[in-house]
Amino acid sequence: MLNAKVKWVDGLQFVGESGTGHAIVMDGDAEVGGKDTGMRPMELLLIGIGGCSGMDVASILQKKKQQLKGIDINVKGEKSDTYPKKFTEIEIEFTVSGKDLSEDAVKRAVELSMEKYCSVKATLEGVAKINFSYKIVNTA
Amino acid sequence: MLNAKVKWVDGLQFVGESGTGHAIVMDGDAEVGGKDTGMRPMELLLIGIGGCSGMDVASILQKKKQQLKGIDINVKGEKSDTYPKKFTEIEIEFTVSGKDLSEDAVKRAVELSMEKYCSVKATLEGVAKINFSYKIVNTA
Repeated sequence: MLNAKVKWVDGLQFVGESGTGHAIVMDGDAEVGGKDTGMRPMELLLIGIGGCSGMDVASILQKKKQQLKGIDINVKGEKSDTYPKKFTEIEIEFTVSGKDLSEDAVKRAVELSMEKYCSVKATLEGVAKINFSYKIVNTA
Repeated sequence: MLNAKVKWVDGLQFVGESGTGHAIVMDGDAEVGGKDTGMRPMELLLIGIGGCSGMDVASILQKKKQQLKGIDINVKGEKSDTYPKKFTEIEIEFTVSGKDLSEDAVKRAVELSMEKYCSVKATLEGVAKINFSYKIVNTA
């Protein structure tokens, strides 16, 4: 069981505190009456899927003793035009960089996250179609 | 289209930056090799659904000229025991406090969010069963 508390501050500004004790500010766009002092709630889903899959990939590649230098994940979400404007499609692009990275190890790590481990992906994919791709950058 | 960039820092620590320019740290539990320097990605979903529905409720009640003093939202998420450990059930409890609040206005605001407007709820409910309740606290 995970939990969170979300508290209204003012206008459309809210502070969310997670059960593990970390906090974040959320706010709306100016065009809907917010002041943009923090993220949009829908952005949290994109960051969540990036973080979740990134942790899987980092964890698997570190266990495989890969010389990892970086993992960058770009996430894009397409919303429906009509209310409730849910995500219809999410695209995740992984860029994994390191030294002498095994292409097979990276491919396997990304696939294991996407197909087996990533809880956020598994929660979102009931509604949103999720696509992913990866590239490997081997540096000296 | 919304977007986010998530970048690996070290261990299981990642920084996510939203398209609107706000950032957050994510990290894992010590038991999976993290250092708990930030939220778990799955917690972001619970905070996201709380923030999204809270903004709807705040916005609707402010338009209805209700004398709002507080909105507190408790969110709990039950995960499956097996991988990918997705959310199976999410419970949202709203406590709306104010002066001379109309019970009908609060009920309607919460229902409009849950049934019509909240994008995060609509994205999560393909997989997770979502329950909600509310209470009203009228103060002097």
